[in-house]
Amino acid sequence: MIHIPFTDRQQQIIDIVRISQPITSEQIAEKLNLTRATLRPDLAILTMSGVLEAKPKVGYYYTGRSNLNVISEYLESVKVSDIKSMPVIVEEGTSVYDAIVTLFLEDVGTIFVTNNSYLVGAVSRKDFLKVAIGGSSDLTKIPVGVIMTRMPNIIYTTDEESIVDAARKIIMHEVDSLPVVEIIKENGREMPRIVGKVSKTNITRFFVQLSNG
Amino acid sequence: MIHIPFTDRQQQIIDIVRISQPITSEQIAEKLNLTRATLRPDLAILTMSGVLEAKPKVGYYYTGRSNLNVISEYLESVKVSDIKSMPVIVEEGTSVYDAIVTLFLEDVGTIFVTNNSYLVGAVSRKDFLKVAIGGSSDLTKIPVGVIMTRMPNIIYTTDEESIVDAARKIIMHEVDSLPVVEIIKENGREMPRIVGKVSKTNITRFFVQLSNG
Repeated sequence: MIHIPFTDRQQQIIDIVRISQPITSEQIAEKLNLTRATLRPDLAILTMSGVLEAKPKVGYYYTGRSNLNVISEYLESVKVSDIKSMPVIVEEGTSVYDAIVTLFLEDVGTIFVTNNSYLVGAVSRKDFLKVAIGGSSDLTKIPVGVIMTRMPNIIYTTDEESIVDAARKIIMHEVDSLPVVEIIKENGREMPRIVGKVSKTNITRFFVQLSNG
Repeated sequence: MIHIPFTDRQQQIIDIVRISQPITSEQIAEKLNLTRATLRPDLAILTMSGVLEAKPKVGYYYTGRSNLNVISEYLESVKVSDIKSMPVIVEEGTSVYDAIVTLFLEDVGTIFVTNNSYLVGAVSRKDFLKVAIGGSSDLTKIPVGVIMTRMPNIIYTTDEESIVDAARKIIMHEVDSLPVVEIIKENGREMPRIVGKVSKTNITRFFVQLSNG
């Protein structure tokens, strides 16, 4: 990709086309009091760049492509597999207390729960805090399976999904973290195997890298 | 800004200049088996875009500007004030229990603590979870001031800072959220007034908007 700041004249041409489209190069030249030959390089650049579209025998149209299009095209090309990190996993029978200890040791916001290596649930700091302030129960006796959010109610992503779509799920469903899963067919059933996670931290870290150019 | 995908020939020219810089247009034309006149529009575009730089009587240089430069320039221009949200605040004397209730009611990850409307501390879900599983103490009796992270140990940002710098602080200091402060001079002392917050959620939401173009 090449990026060229518009010259004043190119900006004038864009404004004219936007207001009067379709418009021929003769008409643009007339409005600017210039010859067609003078305009030719500018029109060539604006057409190549996709800002204007030239229809033979009709004239120029404004397409509305902007700076941000380039950014969003780039972002769509980055996949979950490019930024995912290792999930922290416990088995379904683990006590809430031990899961909280794991949460602190690994310093993560969400613990994923598996059964026979398949993803069955997720527990967040918020879930743990809720049971901890309940206070009445012995956290070493309650299995994490009792308080977790259970499949199929877990929002997940896959290696191939764009990080933009993953970020959109995080915002829409108000979660901190998505498990990255691979769906395995076993005896005709579709079972999710967890292969990573993508959290707001991953997105924020990617955002910082992005801005380092 | 205009954005033009490189043609194959432009890419060839870039590669030649990168390897053999400085190099004159005659020499480039020779390597590509083309006339100088044929190359002229491509060299004009590559120079205007800043990918190549032309030094009179010396030749063309490669500047290394890329797609990502444009993105990072854009990101640097977005300020904390553009994406900040309302902070959730309690007074220093509030009990830990009431602060946790506020955390759940407002559904936030961090509570900020003020004294006489100045920022004095911050408490995260992690801090609350730590005291809650301690279990021995009555959370309705402990003031939040006892467990909070206290100024000057709180990493903060300001309205004028770029969101990139704010995101960098979040990642470097491993926090979920930064208070946005205004420094007020009072009796010769600099006092922080809290005017917002920027969290990983704000960054992730901005990231989603960015990709919508």
